[in-house]
Amino acid sequence: MPVNLSAPDPASLHAVPGLTLGIGSAGIKKPGRKDVLVMRLADQAKVAGVFTRNRFCAAPVQLCREHLRHAAPRALVVNTGNANAGTGLDGRARALQVCEALAGLLDCERDQILPFSTGVILEPLPADKIVAALPAAIADLAPANWAQAAEAIMTTDVVAKAASKQLQIGGATLTVTGIAKGAGMIHPNMATMLGYVATDADVAQPLLQAIVKHAADRSFNCITIDGDTSTNDSFMLIATGQTGPAILDADSADYLALRDAVTEVAQTLAQAIVRDGEGATKFMTVQVEGGLDESECKAVGYAIGRSPLVKTAFFASDPNLGRILAAIGYAGIDDLDVDKLDLYLDDVLVACQGGRNPAYREEDGQRVMNKSEILIRVLLNRGPVSATVWTCDFSYDYVKINADYRS
Amino acid sequence: MPVNLSAPDPASLHAVPGLTLGIGSAGIKKPGRKDVLVMRLADQAKVAGVFTRNRFCAAPVQLCREHLRHAAPRALVVNTGNANAGTGLDGRARALQVCEALAGLLDCERDQILPFSTGVILEPLPADKIVAALPAAIADLAPANWAQAAEAIMTTDVVAKAASKQLQIGGATLTVTGIAKGAGMIHPNMATMLGYVATDADVAQPLLQAIVKHAADRSFNCITIDGDTSTNDSFMLIATGQTGPAILDADSADYLALRDAVTEVAQTLAQAIVRDGEGATKFMTVQVEGGLDESECKAVGYAIGRSPLVKTAFFASDPNLGRILAAIGYAGIDDLDVDKLDLYLDDVLVACQGGRNPAYREEDGQRVMNKSEILIRVLLNRGPVSATVWTCDFSYDYVKINADYRS
Repeated sequence: MPVNLSAPDPASLHAVPGLTLGIGSAGIKKPGRKDVLVMRLADQAKVAGVFTRNRFCAAPVQLCREHLRHAAPRALVVNTGNANAGTGLDGRARALQVCEALAGLLDCERDQILPFSTGVILEPLPADKIVAALPAAIADLAPANWAQAAEAIMTTDVVAKAASKQLQIGGATLTVTGIAKGAGMIHPNMATMLGYVATDADVAQPLLQAIVKHAADRSFNCITIDGDTSTNDSFMLIATGQTGPAILDADSADYLALRDAVTEVAQTLAQAIVRDGEGATKFMTVQVEGGLDESECKAVGYAIGRSPLVKTAFFASDPNLGRILAAIGYAGIDDLDVDKLDLYLDDVLVACQGGRNPAYREEDGQRVMNKSEILIRVLLNRGPVSATVWTCDFSYDYVKINADYRS
Repeated sequence: MPVNLSAPDPASLHAVPGLTLGIGSAGIKKPGRKDVLVMRLADQAKVAGVFTRNRFCAAPVQLCREHLRHAAPRALVVNTGNANAGTGLDGRARALQVCEALAGLLDCERDQILPFSTGVILEPLPADKIVAALPAAIADLAPANWAQAAEAIMTTDVVAKAASKQLQIGGATLTVTGIAKGAGMIHPNMATMLGYVATDADVAQPLLQAIVKHAADRSFNCITIDGDTSTNDSFMLIATGQTGPAILDADSADYLALRDAVTEVAQTLAQAIVRDGEGATKFMTVQVEGGLDESECKAVGYAIGRSPLVKTAFFASDPNLGRILAAIGYAGIDDLDVDKLDLYLDDVLVACQGGRNPAYREEDGQRVMNKSEILIRVLLNRGPVSATVWTCDFSYDYVKINADYRS
């Protein structure tokens, strides 16, 4: 079961003026399953996004990138159950077929549609089924459908993920609301991770792009579940431009307030993905301090966060903490002086100067390991920089879920 | 259970003139367990080794490196149950205590002893217990104890690992015999992996070092179980110099014959480690062809071989082969053209030119997935180089073994 995570209260999810959401059922994996989401945008809306760095990026990811360059998006369409990845030119044609059908129904151009897919790789996208589900999704379009939308994009997620907040800018109340799906295959640069955050703010396109990058680097790019990076990850930021003053200056207080609100929503969503990691029973924050630069701090954080040995020890609540030192040791910092290194588990000093803290008692480690939320704190003691990675443990259920994924 | 691997027949393990082996019981983890091995070398023996690249390398690894530089080794001593890693200066003192005691018993200098430890990290080495076990181990010294030695170095290994072969050089019959332990935490540059191969050949020191590197690169450095690299990995090559002509020239047929025999024994041991990977039910050979250089071929091989998603799919015999493409995509080849790529499972062409092979039928993939030994063949189609990685699947039992490791 997810770690301290429950489904969002629909009443807590503020509608975003200028955006409506509609859900349909294409029956891709199972008949009757709600597996298609359409998000329709007001005419003046802008969209910015960041995508997977996997070289095998899926056909819809390629199309999204192109469509974002060439046209003003009017709608997004998401299907679950099939990733349309590893499908070559045929996969592209099928994604375009979906875009074209939706564009016809919404009276816009094909390249004003942004398509997204998540699910099994290497199988042909059932585009006809998706197209057949579009009219019902359009009929369902409404501003208040955020909770239903969060459910419609789930795959192996146990709990739907959504977050929302409001802020004041120039006397106006602005909304930032988002949904995400995750579960397995999560690693930096995202993975089978879809995230959509929308605001009614009026933001210039380059600033929107800067915000989405800023937020991704502090949220979806700080998490790891199994170290696999997917073919389909996408994090999209939509600004419908309906409310408040135009935000044109990256140094303005308005810009910073909006950027931080988007980042906060993205962090809540990213952490929710880890809390609902496949088979997760614990949520771990790996905080690496005293590094020379962010990349070495993140390398250490990820080495710990993706180590199957570390993750199985946390699953067992076994303070076999030497495995954390071993992971630090192979994180790839060639000139790391391990004799300077300190390791804390919550407030317990486990290792200092590279060796076991003489005052460390196993029962202190055990007390922390029994918790469901644990802070792993590594002090490299070689520089001024810190970074944080969020991860979860590795359980029988991870194997079960992924061994049985297609059945 | 190990994949097509059984304990070695003691009669198949040829003794190596100039080397004797003795086993003792220090009761480090469990009373009565045989957990100490001494290997005593003839006076003219030479030793070369390769070690873990983990920055947190254990105290015995540091000492081994130093002792190899300064003195002619007369004996090796191995304990299981405690890795003596993450133990700082105190760990070094304890390892030296063991060396000193053994040197006293064998009438040599402390730095002529090479110490090795494997087991739990971050706990003090019970040096007194090991020292107390040494006299019995020395009393046990005999040339025929290879099978017992293979058993004495096991930790979570299910089956002891040993291999032996003989070859003719200059009219003499030379022997190459080795033992290894592995199980979990196995990744390139080795990991909780100990390997010892001995020959009675008479080899110059620099050539011995070249052979150990050559063999390691084609054996222990081609395997991955869980992607963790340990603090204690060591692969040692011993030449006792008792038999045959002196081998002094790296271009000679004698040298090449010995090098290939050592490599063959090391490969058998390395593959045995994978076959006995924690919880393994399948043995996979990942062959990456058509790369620009070896490092990119190995990067692709390891991305596939360490992906939890790929490994759980093989455990389930589920031909969810898109996960292999996803792993190739994040292997880190920035300019990889995925549209050129072919993927075979044994003789079945699954994907060609980056997409699903139109003639591929799920039942063909299923037929191969049901086997216990599977070849994954990736054709990058961008260069002349190939590389091979051996790996195993990821099962419930891996989690169970590592969650319960210390209990």
